[in-house]
Amino acid sequence: MKNNILILFIGLMLANCGEVINKEKDIEDIKNALNKSAEDWSNGDLEGYMNVYWKSDKLQFIGKNGITYGWENTLNAYKKKYPTTYHTGSLTFKVLSTDFLSKNLYSLTGEYYLKRGSGDLNGIFTLIFKKIEGKWVIVSDHTQ
Amino acid sequence: MKNNILILFIGLMLANCGEVINKEKDIEDIKNALNKSAEDWSNGDLEGYMNVYWKSDKLQFIGKNGITYGWENTLNAYKKKYPTTYHTGSLTFKVLSTDFLSKNLYSLTGEYYLKRGSGDLNGIFTLIFKKIEGKWVIVSDHTQ
Repeated sequence: MKNNILILFIGLMLANCGEVINKEKDIEDIKNALNKSAEDWSNGDLEGYMNVYWKSDKLQFIGKNGITYGWENTLNAYKKKYPTTYHTGSLTFKVLSTDFLSKNLYSLTGEYYLKRGSGDLNGIFTLIFKKIEGKWVIVSDHTQ
Repeated sequence: MKNNILILFIGLMLANCGEVINKEKDIEDIKNALNKSAEDWSNGDLEGYMNVYWKSDKLQFIGKNGITYGWENTLNAYKKKYPTTYHTGSLTFKVLSTDFLSKNLYSLTGEYYLKRGSGDLNGIFTLIFKKIEGKWVIVSDHTQ
């Protein structure tokens, strides 16, 4: 019986401790995904830019006018607002803060700078990144 | 030996399945905490309002000018911006979306409406709520 309790205890330990979390690696991967996204934007490739977003109807994009739901709707909103490379211009991000929330879940706050022919833009955003099927994606974006 | 493997398996099951998540109850508790906070604000009680925020130096408040870190700094910023009940007025929230992120972790997007003598205000916010030591608190607030 004593032996059984020991084995039960080992089972509990394995189940809880088997998950190794490497925050530095996670944050590096998240930043790389974000920078790749900015590169695609700067090449005028909005679909490429949108690769970092969760391809789901539940994706949330929050701006001053409310919530846009879904990957397709978000892409279409970008296409409408930034119809040509004259509008997309060159995008860079400055990461201000990255925060571990839970396993496979981080928040990231940063600033964006858009240099372009039709007038520069900049602002601040908070993203929630989730690792889904082995890939880091933005599930929520609040940009102002 | 066969018996030991069975007990090990039960241990693994218990460790993974022992956590019951009641999302409806969680969201109800979160909304209640938020509404209590708005009530305190409307009574001119900024410390009471701040009870829903994580009492930590790591609390993040993101506005158009960047990130304010820490509970004390956030309270002081509120006190400076809203020095009297003429400035605080009456606050109400409209919840637009609540999303389960992980155990003890939700995001909430909503609108705030401030009716007051010195001019009405409204805007949109995204909060990250975390249950810490049995209490739901905001760990990150992006308000615009």
